[in-house]
Amino acid sequence: MAEEVSLGRLPAVVAFGGGHGLASSLTALRRITDRLTAIVTVADDGGSSGRLRDELDCLPPGDLRMALAALCGDDESGRTWAEVLQYRFPGDGSLGGHAIGNLLIAGLWQRLGGDPVAGLDMVARLLDAKGRVLPMSAVPLQIEADVVGLDAAAPDEVSTVRGQAQVAKTMAEVRAVRLNPADPPASAQAVRAVGDADWLVLGPGSWFTSVIPHLLVPELARAIVDTGARRILTMNVQSDAETKGASAARHLELLAEHAPKLRLDVVIADRSFARDDPHLETYARSLGAELVLADVAHRDGSPRHDPLRLASAYADIMGV
Amino acid sequence: MAEEVSLGRLPAVVAFGGGHGLASSLTALRRITDRLTAIVTVADDGGSSGRLRDELDCLPPGDLRMALAALCGDDESGRTWAEVLQYRFPGDGSLGGHAIGNLLIAGLWQRLGGDPVAGLDMVARLLDAKGRVLPMSAVPLQIEADVVGLDAAAPDEVSTVRGQAQVAKTMAEVRAVRLNPADPPASAQAVRAVGDADWLVLGPGSWFTSVIPHLLVPELARAIVDTGARRILTMNVQSDAETKGASAARHLELLAEHAPKLRLDVVIADRSFARDDPHLETYARSLGAELVLADVAHRDGSPRHDPLRLASAYADIMGV
Repeated sequence: MAEEVSLGRLPAVVAFGGGHGLASSLTALRRITDRLTAIVTVADDGGSSGRLRDELDCLPPGDLRMALAALCGDDESGRTWAEVLQYRFPGDGSLGGHAIGNLLIAGLWQRLGGDPVAGLDMVARLLDAKGRVLPMSAVPLQIEADVVGLDAAAPDEVSTVRGQAQVAKTMAEVRAVRLNPADPPASAQAVRAVGDADWLVLGPGSWFTSVIPHLLVPELARAIVDTGARRILTMNVQSDAETKGASAARHLELLAEHAPKLRLDVVIADRSFARDDPHLETYARSLGAELVLADVAHRDGSPRHDPLRLASAYADIMGV
Repeated sequence: MAEEVSLGRLPAVVAFGGGHGLASSLTALRRITDRLTAIVTVADDGGSSGRLRDELDCLPPGDLRMALAALCGDDESGRTWAEVLQYRFPGDGSLGGHAIGNLLIAGLWQRLGGDPVAGLDMVARLLDAKGRVLPMSAVPLQIEADVVGLDAAAPDEVSTVRGQAQVAKTMAEVRAVRLNPADPPASAQAVRAVGDADWLVLGPGSWFTSVIPHLLVPELARAIVDTGARRILTMNVQSDAETKGASAARHLELLAEHAPKLRLDVVIADRSFARDDPHLETYARSLGAELVLADVAHRDGSPRHDPLRLASAYADIMGV
């Protein structure tokens, strides 16, 4: 990295994630580099994306759209297009609830055929996006979870919950997730971006449905393990609906259980989430990582990151 | 005009119409001027546009989309976006049959609110369009027709057919059309463009549903009558489903019946349609127009104009 910076080039950063969490990391990272790639989960089966999957048998466009909007150009045109693509049709008619950008992306895929990246690159140009957005796989995926506690009469029984939307809102405790198909093809561009990166950023995001899935695409997981890039894991600022009160250390443990070969260089945790978690530093070290504690939670107290604080933490770590 | 040209400026041209006919005149006119405005009917209630009107209570976007696509930029980006906007979702699901551009335009209107021209201008920039596309009115309109022959038992009885899609395909003889509401507000930008124009071009297009409606918006009709611009009427290359075998002269008569104050400077007719029509020149003269006969029909024999031949005819007439 030091060499890169001394040559006047900003670091090449690849950020992994799904919906809102990835939008947070992109909003932060766009402030510190102009070489940014987002790699996005493609297992969503709820809402507008789920309806489009059902009707058109395409990738779920919603998380890809959100990542593109987070990278929109700084001028009025970029911001206006981003708002337009994020806007959802009102009402409960056949268009009601569809984000305009989802329809546009799905239409581009229909019209252009072949590699979904071509359509995403067109939307990126429309937005004058400050980075590239890639799907983690070129085929739509399903998430399945092993959960316990679904049946109150048999609290230790392991059941299967199918579909990202169901997994994200199950009342049961999620123990593990897997993809169906189990060995989907990775996006070739995504694998290449990982190989060419200086830094990888995993998280924040819904732990089982946005952060862990990338590590379940074998080819992509291999690239993440094999790359010469350094790996940052950004913890959520607290546990979420999927991890239900799990400690920060338990989040690390869950990640490692799904990707035994993964080594990390840096784990960023908000001070409030790390407090009273004596195992966090030990777990981080066991994965090879330095634990960086910082105040990165949003100033308004909502359970999300503050983009400027997060950008500042990334800049310190990457030395830019 | 001569002054304009001598100053090196190309003429300001306003083209009126609806769907395919307007696309033909725009495809021709874009070759001879860079100061081009399309003014488009907004009474369509069929197909994708009709469904969007029903669901979102918006202007019908289809004819506006087609005009924008006809004006797309000359480079790969402009052409690709035009193709994408024209592309229709396959299947008979909730999106089936919707043109992507219709959804995008309708979404822009929903998101931006207010004047529909703002959304059309955004799509024009996306396409790097070689002109501006305006609706003739900012409110959706309905076309009603007086027809005879609907009831075989009472062949002279006048009945009413409601809705553009029904009027366009009625088996009966259309005698007259009107708008509902009868006095819709004209688009202010359209009225201004007419006032600032050097040339107005009416037609070609479906006579009752694409050519005549502009003359039924009182404020727009007044602007067309009062402007200092010269007025060209481009006849269709033959009668169509709406005019059912009517002669070229009868087309002029129908137009004049709907716009008694309208004077024309030039009537362009394809030689084949003008042949054996002894009244055409008389009618044209009675409206103040010089009749220009030219081979403007498509070389492939289909009932539409050849864009290059039509461009050549316009260039001769406008002296560019």
